[in-house]
Amino acid sequence: MRNLLLTLAYDGTGYKGWQRLPGSGKTVQESVEAALGRVLGRAVPIIGAGRTDAGVHAEGQAANFHTDTTRAPEDILEDVNEALPRDIACRSVKEVPERFHARYWAVEKTYRYRLHVHPIPDPFSRRYSLHVPESLDLPAMEAAAAELVGRRDFSAFANHRGLKRGGERDLRTVHIQRNGQFVDILFSADGFLYNQARIMAGALIEAGKGRLGAKDIRGMLERRDRAAVPGAAPAQGLCLVRVEFRTEAPGAE
Amino acid sequence: MRNLLLTLAYDGTGYKGWQRLPGSGKTVQESVEAALGRVLGRAVPIIGAGRTDAGVHAEGQAANFHTDTTRAPEDILEDVNEALPRDIACRSVKEVPERFHARYWAVEKTYRYRLHVHPIPDPFSRRYSLHVPESLDLPAMEAAAAELVGRRDFSAFANHRGLKRGGERDLRTVHIQRNGQFVDILFSADGFLYNQARIMAGALIEAGKGRLGAKDIRGMLERRDRAAVPGAAPAQGLCLVRVEFRTEAPGAE
Repeated sequence: MRNLLLTLAYDGTGYKGWQRLPGSGKTVQESVEAALGRVLGRAVPIIGAGRTDAGVHAEGQAANFHTDTTRAPEDILEDVNEALPRDIACRSVKEVPERFHARYWAVEKTYRYRLHVHPIPDPFSRRYSLHVPESLDLPAMEAAAAELVGRRDFSAFANHRGLKRGGERDLRTVHIQRNGQFVDILFSADGFLYNQARIMAGALIEAGKGRLGAKDIRGMLERRDRAAVPGAAPAQGLCLVRVEFRTEAPGAE
Repeated sequence: MRNLLLTLAYDGTGYKGWQRLPGSGKTVQESVEAALGRVLGRAVPIIGAGRTDAGVHAEGQAANFHTDTTRAPEDILEDVNEALPRDIACRSVKEVPERFHARYWAVEKTYRYRLHVHPIPDPFSRRYSLHVPESLDLPAMEAAAAELVGRRDFSAFANHRGLKRGGERDLRTVHIQRNGQFVDILFSADGFLYNQARIMAGALIEAGKGRLGAKDIRGMLERRDRAAVPGAAPAQGLCLVRVEFRTEAPGAE
């Protein structure tokens, strides 16, 4: 069987996330599976690298599927984009080893949280950013971010779901970049707990407003105190920008 | 009476245009009037500089209204933005002479038609551009655009409405700018006939695809032959970016 890897971009506004949670509403996964099914003429279950939450976007989600089609990847790419709804696009289709698994082979994910920092709201970026009318202290945000970086127990920065595998994750970098009226916070880690990126973004915004210091962040991490951490920033500012994979099969699989 | 000028930005996706045409659906004008009414405590009719069509966006629409409020423009700005729906923003409020009239005092309007020129569609710009999967010949588009510039009868480049005042307009400049994956066509004129910007954009796209030459454009203008001109490009690529006003009252008013 061939194994094909899709890179996907989507505007998550109209979706209940990548994968269905209890409750109803359309998901990105089932929309991609339906498009692939029409192109390949049979049902095709896909495996996503990460489960983006309701309303969260992606520029570089990844998903693989097994197929016996003999069609060239570039032909599948073209037809899938015609079959997909306009708020989902497939950016590439490529062959991967038969044992490749988008979730198990992922070694790093990068999420971006985008802030529109300006007194006047912007109708064109409202779907893809959080409007922050007051100015932010970026050095204070960077100092707070530095406290988060490392292999740590992020239990205090997660909502309840997703703690089954323990709260430890390796947050490798947090970059804060100003780009005109926008401030992007980029988080790269081996994995993220449920709502972790949005909760970290919420805390860094509070740090930027002077309501929270680097010391407070350190205390929250040490005490694993979810109640002390500010609420998650809203979904529309978050985007899964990139997934990195190992190039060899993991030995433990 | 004071006379205040608003600069407005809006995502036109959800609106039936600036002003209601026969038929139903919400308009930008009535949404702005409703927000102003809540802020000032009384109904406030506004005068827009241009009537953007259903689904067309604006970054720099202008509208004025008379009021006896004594509130400072910056306070009105803040409150209006809180009262407006999230797909409309007010960018500035300023005092203008009592006789200022946003339609009669406008001397130049600039519209931008945005193309996303790339084989893969982009979910994030789909609401604000037209996706063109094939590459475009920009020098051919520029040669075709040069035929349009000048004071001419644009009857062939307009739909029926709006010809009451004659088909002559002064198209001052057409600029074609590449910006990464996007190609922007900027039209500046003293005024535009109904659907003129979108019909000119449609013709320039055909020129970029090699289906229409500068000579064809010249012939269409000379013969005023609407039937020979390609259809209007769709509304979502068009945006009213700027309105320029004279600084003195027009003598003829």
